[in-house]
Amino acid sequence: MAEQGVRISADMLENHSSAKEATLKGVQDVENNPSFHSVGYGGLPNKEGHVVMDAGYMDGDTLHFGAVAAMEGFYSAAEVAQSLAEGDANNFRAGTGAEKYAEEKGFAKRDNLTEEAKKIYEEKRMEELKPYDGHDTVCFVGLDEKGTICTTTSTSGLFMKEPGRVGDTPMPGVGFYADSEVGGAAATGMGEEIAKGALSYAVVDRMKRGMSAQEAAESAVKELDASLKKRNGYAQPMSVIALDKDGSWGAGTNIEFTFCVANEEMETTVYEMVEQDGEWVTKKKEN
Amino acid sequence: MAEQGVRISADMLENHSSAKEATLKGVQDVENNPSFHSVGYGGLPNKEGHVVMDAGYMDGDTLHFGAVAAMEGFYSAAEVAQSLAEGDANNFRAGTGAEKYAEEKGFAKRDNLTEEAKKIYEEKRMEELKPYDGHDTVCFVGLDEKGTICTTTSTSGLFMKEPGRVGDTPMPGVGFYADSEVGGAAATGMGEEIAKGALSYAVVDRMKRGMSAQEAAESAVKELDASLKKRNGYAQPMSVIALDKDGSWGAGTNIEFTFCVANEEMETTVYEMVEQDGEWVTKKKEN
Repeated sequence: MAEQGVRISADMLENHSSAKEATLKGVQDVENNPSFHSVGYGGLPNKEGHVVMDAGYMDGDTLHFGAVAAMEGFYSAAEVAQSLAEGDANNFRAGTGAEKYAEEKGFAKRDNLTEEAKKIYEEKRMEELKPYDGHDTVCFVGLDEKGTICTTTSTSGLFMKEPGRVGDTPMPGVGFYADSEVGGAAATGMGEEIAKGALSYAVVDRMKRGMSAQEAAESAVKELDASLKKRNGYAQPMSVIALDKDGSWGAGTNIEFTFCVANEEMETTVYEMVEQDGEWVTKKKEN
Repeated sequence: MAEQGVRISADMLENHSSAKEATLKGVQDVENNPSFHSVGYGGLPNKEGHVVMDAGYMDGDTLHFGAVAAMEGFYSAAEVAQSLAEGDANNFRAGTGAEKYAEEKGFAKRDNLTEEAKKIYEEKRMEELKPYDGHDTVCFVGLDEKGTICTTTSTSGLFMKEPGRVGDTPMPGVGFYADSEVGGAAATGMGEEIAKGALSYAVVDRMKRGMSAQEAAESAVKELDASLKKRNGYAQPMSVIALDKDGSWGAGTNIEFTFCVANEEMETTVYEMVEQDGEWVTKKKEN
């Protein structure tokens, strides 16, 4: 989903863009693609037939964040979230308050419901849906030449979600976290499960205590997954990507998961995590 | 603010209530008191003159949570939040979606704007306000005889907040966190600052790694405060309370802070944290 966006983002970083700008353009490439049904234009609607967005952004230098939840009718939820990271208060807005802010600031509007998404909604709304069906957040973690790490996330959330539902994507510490002195992380999957362990903060905190990005991402998901299975008998899907301040990266998951990486030494590369003998292993994805 | 609520809650726990019920009644005592201007009935309004609520709840046995944000017009935001902790999805609702849910479920409605709060709004709305003015979340962390730890929080948020603003109070891991195998924590102060370090999760995670409730609360605030001062030159107010699975408690703060404790050995007691020689020390409050 994010392969083309990662290419765009990597090109920008090579041309001295900030991580903030580069991750935004990467996310927007996904937001603008109507064939992705879980983010932006073409996203699947909520129970009432509305495409409603969550998005978040964190600046790892200052720990300032901006976020929107349950916001409808704008071109890019991620750009609205980024703009909210200014100032010390009111950085996270939800619902009509978020829409009012975005309108006052002059952000471009768009009805994100496509004919195709509407058709899927009409066909499937009467079926019994598992909440995870068709869900995937776009999550970018970027490190720029100045050493700034930031995260930008965007999603239309769960297909058939209830009105006003807030997922992990706009919650700092939960769906995203960045600290330029340590690293950044961002999550996708079932937001309500990810929130049970403040997954993105947990991953960055583990890196702070000395783990590699891979160890941190892997162990945080593994422990939360095991804890939930022990308590509740099951754990819903969750995946997390991580990047440390030196550019080392990793990912953790409890479900098959695909992600992309690009850096100075490596063109945009797609990886997948698959289960082998009870462990989740990362492999280059063959086309 | 919560002294009477803690008495109610402690009596209930003594009479075999669950931590869920006991913390709710304690929070509701504060929500219902019009003389407290930062929670429930009598809460100060947002920029547009509306009293708008955030609330959260977490069950430390299952890690399930429920939350509402930017919700207007109901008797108890905390009871709506608690009711959302059922099921695996849609546990956090914001704005009109939260109001629609609460209405459909038949929760009691109330216009929480009192004449007194309206008068304060009319008098002060033209002044330059610091966002923290008049802010205090009610946070309960309870441990019941079955060993269940839970947290319940409620607030009307910052006075003069922007429409749709979401604070830390409804965010799991940020404004509250509970794990019955470890402990629970909940935060008050400037939500946007608390979110920069996922403070409630951070405190419980420290207890999990062997710290006492006091060490965990104190060190988590101290490190986040220092980190923010180093990055940004200042840190906004934040306070956190913590309780471990054995009933030991603690608190951390970077501003003068008052809280209440009750347990099997001790009647409801009010404590305050004051700065002495650069350290925050906890003392029984003299009446």
